[in-house]
Amino acid sequence: MTYCVAIKVNAGVVFCSDSRTNAGVDHVSIYSKMFHFGIPGYRQLVITSAGNLATTQAVIARIRKDIKDGAAISLENVCTIYDAADYIGQLSVAIQEKYAQHNNSVNFEASFLLGGQIGIDPPAVMLIYPQGNYIATCDQTPYFQIGESKYGKPVLDRILRPDTALDTASLCALVSMDSTMRSNLTVGPPIELMSYATDSGVMNHSVFAADDEYLRDLTRSWDQQIVQAFAHLPTPPNNQSTN
Amino acid sequence: MTYCVAIKVNAGVVFCSDSRTNAGVDHVSIYSKMFHFGIPGYRQLVITSAGNLATTQAVIARIRKDIKDGAAISLENVCTIYDAADYIGQLSVAIQEKYAQHNNSVNFEASFLLGGQIGIDPPAVMLIYPQGNYIATCDQTPYFQIGESKYGKPVLDRILRPDTALDTASLCALVSMDSTMRSNLTVGPPIELMSYATDSGVMNHSVFAADDEYLRDLTRSWDQQIVQAFAHLPTPPNNQSTN
Repeated sequence: MTYCVAIKVNAGVVFCSDSRTNAGVDHVSIYSKMFHFGIPGYRQLVITSAGNLATTQAVIARIRKDIKDGAAISLENVCTIYDAADYIGQLSVAIQEKYAQHNNSVNFEASFLLGGQIGIDPPAVMLIYPQGNYIATCDQTPYFQIGESKYGKPVLDRILRPDTALDTASLCALVSMDSTMRSNLTVGPPIELMSYATDSGVMNHSVFAADDEYLRDLTRSWDQQIVQAFAHLPTPPNNQSTN
Repeated sequence: MTYCVAIKVNAGVVFCSDSRTNAGVDHVSIYSKMFHFGIPGYRQLVITSAGNLATTQAVIARIRKDIKDGAAISLENVCTIYDAADYIGQLSVAIQEKYAQHNNSVNFEASFLLGGQIGIDPPAVMLIYPQGNYIATCDQTPYFQIGESKYGKPVLDRILRPDTALDTASLCALVSMDSTMRSNLTVGPPIELMSYATDSGVMNHSVFAADDEYLRDLTRSWDQQIVQAFAHLPTPPNNQSTN
């Protein structure tokens, strides 16, 4: 499994991904699921992936090849993030179909989160479905998740608003990741975090290993805050006794 | 879907359940999923249920009938909670098999959480699987969930320890329920809460409707606490810029 979250707030975009892949509990590997494509000051895009590892690797390899070859359509020349999403969606579908025609018992599906900024367009975050179609965030739904999404969802729902600060959005992504890692063995470190401030032209990338001091601090600190929060909750009304 | 959680701490047991059942999004009903059986001061048991509603209703009806008929085995005469779990598990399997023999395309499965105290035995909480077998909580795993369990799990993992106070365990169950209701439309009010203090001989039952003032207070208050908690988290280290 995988857990990736992408957040779009007014201040910018934040991506967070784990690095564990598995095909059964005794076939576990570490692969980065976060990929950056950028032209400083003008075009900054980040992609995270979930699903069939062969499919996601083939899509990323093809994206890189198209840039290198100066293809007619590539991440270096698409005009909008919508165009970029469409391009990635089409690559993904083509690769899935290539293998599915010989074998329909294996799931070749993959999902992608795409975000960043192209030129003077505002930043955007897109979810690309295995079928190649895609949706963008909106003010009411400022984030997307792919992979093992349920454990980490409540904290996103409680914190994220369009006016949330970029650092708070980054913390929220890390707390959401921590909640997921605790509950699901197939999601694991290293954790990658990418943040992009609107109009900055520069992506900020951090990698947190399993024994990272900051990540351990954050987990401990969040645990303490949650315990303290309980002390400030209203006491339940007097219950009715039932014999 | 359904969400039920049962907690066992040194101070006692807490059960919390929602009341929404659905067979598709346009076939939604309200049914209590919490059932109390007690002899004041001596035997206090609570059951919550998830799964096929016809199965769970048939099991509860049979439990009541066995008590009324003075059956050789009933919740009024089993000697331990393990015996009670075994009895309920056997009823559940028999009812599932009765219908499955005519139709194997429908899922007749049901799960149950059972807890409370019988005589001088310490309180206990059990999870009864659809197959009729069952497990008890332990100090490392002081709670069980049935139904839509993922959204509400992180807060349980962060708060619950064997020495957690009974009121805190009740709050934790309600916060876990609130997180689940926000994220999943098939989990909904009224919310029922049952708490039992060790050796008290009395169950305390509360029901919170959708517009319950306390439940709204709790949700608002928890939201505020979570937002404030973020202000106290350590700032991420200086990121590495990526062009």
